[in-house]
Amino acid sequence: MKYVIIGGVAGGASAAARLKRINEDAEIVLFEKGEHISYANCGLPYYIGNTIEDRKKLFLQTPVSFGNRYDVDVRTLNEVTAINRDRKTVSVKNLRNGKEYEEDYDILLLSPGAEPIKPAIQGIDLPGIFTLRNVADCDRIKMQAIDQMHDNATAVIIGGGFIGLEMAENLCKIGYAVTVVEKATHVLTPLDWPMAAIVQQHLQDKGVRVITQNGLSAFQEKDGKLSVVLEDHTELPCDIAILSIGVRPNIALAQACGLKIGEAGGIWVNEYLQTSDECIFAVGDAIEFPHPVTGKPYCNFLAGPANLQARTAAMNMVYPQSVQYQGSVATAIAKIFELTAASTGLSEAALQKAGIAYQTVITHPAPHATYYPGGQPIHLKLNFCPESGRILGAQAVGSQNVDKQIDVISLLLKHQGTIFDLVNSEHAYAPPYGSAKSPVMFAGMVAENILSHLMNPIQAAELDEILDKQEDINLIDVREIQEFKVGTIEGAENYPVDELREFLEDIQPDKKTVVFCEVGLRGYVAARILMQSGFEEVYNLIGGMKTYRLVGKHNK
Amino acid sequence: MKYVIIGGVAGGASAAARLKRINEDAEIVLFEKGEHISYANCGLPYYIGNTIEDRKKLFLQTPVSFGNRYDVDVRTLNEVTAINRDRKTVSVKNLRNGKEYEEDYDILLLSPGAEPIKPAIQGIDLPGIFTLRNVADCDRIKMQAIDQMHDNATAVIIGGGFIGLEMAENLCKIGYAVTVVEKATHVLTPLDWPMAAIVQQHLQDKGVRVITQNGLSAFQEKDGKLSVVLEDHTELPCDIAILSIGVRPNIALAQACGLKIGEAGGIWVNEYLQTSDECIFAVGDAIEFPHPVTGKPYCNFLAGPANLQARTAAMNMVYPQSVQYQGSVATAIAKIFELTAASTGLSEAALQKAGIAYQTVITHPAPHATYYPGGQPIHLKLNFCPESGRILGAQAVGSQNVDKQIDVISLLLKHQGTIFDLVNSEHAYAPPYGSAKSPVMFAGMVAENILSHLMNPIQAAELDEILDKQEDINLIDVREIQEFKVGTIEGAENYPVDELREFLEDIQPDKKTVVFCEVGLRGYVAARILMQSGFEEVYNLIGGMKTYRLVGKHNK
Repeated sequence: MKYVIIGGVAGGASAAARLKRINEDAEIVLFEKGEHISYANCGLPYYIGNTIEDRKKLFLQTPVSFGNRYDVDVRTLNEVTAINRDRKTVSVKNLRNGKEYEEDYDILLLSPGAEPIKPAIQGIDLPGIFTLRNVADCDRIKMQAIDQMHDNATAVIIGGGFIGLEMAENLCKIGYAVTVVEKATHVLTPLDWPMAAIVQQHLQDKGVRVITQNGLSAFQEKDGKLSVVLEDHTELPCDIAILSIGVRPNIALAQACGLKIGEAGGIWVNEYLQTSDECIFAVGDAIEFPHPVTGKPYCNFLAGPANLQARTAAMNMVYPQSVQYQGSVATAIAKIFELTAASTGLSEAALQKAGIAYQTVITHPAPHATYYPGGQPIHLKLNFCPESGRILGAQAVGSQNVDKQIDVISLLLKHQGTIFDLVNSEHAYAPPYGSAKSPVMFAGMVAENILSHLMNPIQAAELDEILDKQEDINLIDVREIQEFKVGTIEGAENYPVDELREFLEDIQPDKKTVVFCEVGLRGYVAARILMQSGFEEVYNLIGGMKTYRLVGKHNK
Repeated sequence: MKYVIIGGVAGGASAAARLKRINEDAEIVLFEKGEHISYANCGLPYYIGNTIEDRKKLFLQTPVSFGNRYDVDVRTLNEVTAINRDRKTVSVKNLRNGKEYEEDYDILLLSPGAEPIKPAIQGIDLPGIFTLRNVADCDRIKMQAIDQMHDNATAVIIGGGFIGLEMAENLCKIGYAVTVVEKATHVLTPLDWPMAAIVQQHLQDKGVRVITQNGLSAFQEKDGKLSVVLEDHTELPCDIAILSIGVRPNIALAQACGLKIGEAGGIWVNEYLQTSDECIFAVGDAIEFPHPVTGKPYCNFLAGPANLQARTAAMNMVYPQSVQYQGSVATAIAKIFELTAASTGLSEAALQKAGIAYQTVITHPAPHATYYPGGQPIHLKLNFCPESGRILGAQAVGSQNVDKQIDVISLLLKHQGTIFDLVNSEHAYAPPYGSAKSPVMFAGMVAENILSHLMNPIQAAELDEILDKQEDINLIDVREIQEFKVGTIEGAENYPVDELREFLEDIQPDKKTVVFCEVGLRGYVAARILMQSGFEEVYNLIGGMKTYRLVGKHNK
């Protein structure tokens, strides 16, 4: 059996290795139009920032070492220009000598990846504008921008996604003054605003200028210097601009040979990762697949799922329809200076778009036992179904143990897990690693309190709507008087929770009542006291002052 | 409704708080025979070692602050001496004034905890012998041993479990020369030998003397100095001895009033945490409960489960039989100098004892992308059912990201998850946090290769049996020649995997063949080549040389 694979990075190389291990007799030809295979594209920002100093470390395998180990015919700098499904061949152009030829296949695997979006705007081809997707891009940035960098060099990063922010950190690290431009309301759109706000604050603390709700309009050159022009006509002169507004699946080859393209714009595949041609499989960034929560197809552009798809496809290419791919819940993470930001499943924006009802909790647990030294709080947001308690998404930001929380929730998301599963989860606890109640367990407990009507939640934005309308409510800060004095919410009165029972007669029980504390726990205790003392409508501010301070409009 | 709670640490205090939040009208009396409630007993070793410097940090709540917040009648230094089920009262002795009285209850909660085992051997009451269970123990050690410590002070810790090893680190930290004595074949018996061997090596590297397979026989005093006498008559003179051979459930009160004691020696409870008397609930270290994997009752002595039990019991004490407790899979962790050691589910020894068939894999994955700087390998062991692939237990040792792996597997264990779930798991990946294939995913893949007969595993101990018998096999080291020369297994021949296909004719295909490499991956590739080239019986050494070097008998 002869297998041809198009694309030699994550998906293609993994599939070739697995194919050979399953079937030593397989004849495998691997085409890669670039010079390298199986390189560390997720590491490129860190090579730019000199965290990874040795360029050789980016290459997990060379074409020769890989070819030897797996007995694979690796052809780099050979570009497949067409798929001829009628005669089961691919047309190839050898980029070394310009020669064109055809190669036949029994089974074909497409792993062409995705390419950076470059909008057709004025000045897009000016020097100093870069994208970062592969080693060639990376070398170009290193040679043209970094090796010749002068003092006071400035960079504009267009796009505040995970990779844009990784680039912001790494360019800062080598001395650039960095501005991040984001068209959406906030950076890191897989995160909701209360979480992204923490990241934005941190970026600013680190000297990164963040501009949001303002998209790219054009590039121009003035007095020999590049300038980024935004939609509101702001001009940002800079030495380099990094275009990081997203990628799109490489579907040209698939489309040209008539393979089905799905509604999300990726190559359509079935659960066996087979395209609309049963002899052609596809994996990686170029495909779309139904999201396990929404059931709707989407493209995720993540390395982990690409590797798993490669393993799954290889199995099905040898043993037809033997293993089903289960889809990805879009679990992602980035280091942003001293913070880690991660998400899994659906954000509020994505849930609204999908028309899925949700409730949300925000907690600020310690990353380990509070009495053990060190450790800043984790900020954790959990989106869940208000009826069944099914987990819909989660986001976390913090300096420690963020990845652990998201990995656990990611697993539950894939298994249709609920907030009750979080409550009943068990974790490895000793003081340096956690608390007796883990952050996810604790978030689950808060959610459970809402589902069982022990507590009515109110979000910061909902409270602001009430305050904007100057509605007549009891707004009660249940923290200690010292905390209240440092800063509270406009119009709040202070009744510390431990004394609240003594002052019940001073508060009108027939008015809507909103209580809050620093993170939400004392607010919950206070809400329970009020709810069981004849107060008709009591809400606890989700995330407390820690969240409100960042995203609320009525701070005092 | 009047609730009486016996015991004010993890279980009792949590239950009281939850009870009051559910039911503001609840009348709650909390009895604690000690001076403190809700203190950080897991933090005590770190207070001894001065990692936690401020003693006040050990107290999460004072009796007064807790009483105020939750409107609970907290009575410390009040010991319950009997439960009078016939008249629904408890007999109490006020330790402050010696007065005895009765207190009636509608619903009673037992949270009496466990107490350190002190064997009735010669010299057990000599000065200098300590246990560490509560604040009083801790203060005693501080005052009698540490505050008066001299140069060259020596400590013997009897029992090499999680807490014993935490104490070893902390006593070392303040200057003690430490010896750990363990009666079993190795320290940390929840871990299997290939994992515990890494910990033992690390302890020795840090200057801790480790004595195994040798139990405590007696204590004696010679020339005014304490000495620990072992079963083989070895005498270990020391300044202090810490008895850390385990704890036993405090069942005296329960037993005296005729409550059912279970087969594991703990207070029997049903899934609602109700004892054999429906008006009496019990939680924490004193109870036993069926293990979700074996179905057999056991006592686990862990803080996380105790807290969850308290929450569950409180709910059922207000709303009868409303929430079921699901049991604990014994997930535990400890920091041991620069290492972290953690486990969940069942070890090989526990599986053998329970008569459960298992297969096992050992991997040594990097804690994050190999090209990202820093990071020592994680050592991960996965025990699973050789038929269904159901996960039975896992253990990990390493310096980073150990807790994350175990938390993910712990969650799957509670949901009857399989190794296929590990393969399909999704994790937050960026170079500082992991690899495209996570450690647990990778271990799942190795296990899947075994279940699908792509690879036959052989454990280090099984290979040693073959070598002991001088059986005639092909023993092939498939690493590079430079690696082979540094050290291999007696009798091994070297055929580097990337050249193996050229030398197939030099190896006899009808003999049993064992291949190995450094960690197992190249061995797997080599095994696949051989298995598909007419070799009849091919095995890949699980864990490779990294494991064999530590636990094998035929190193060369």
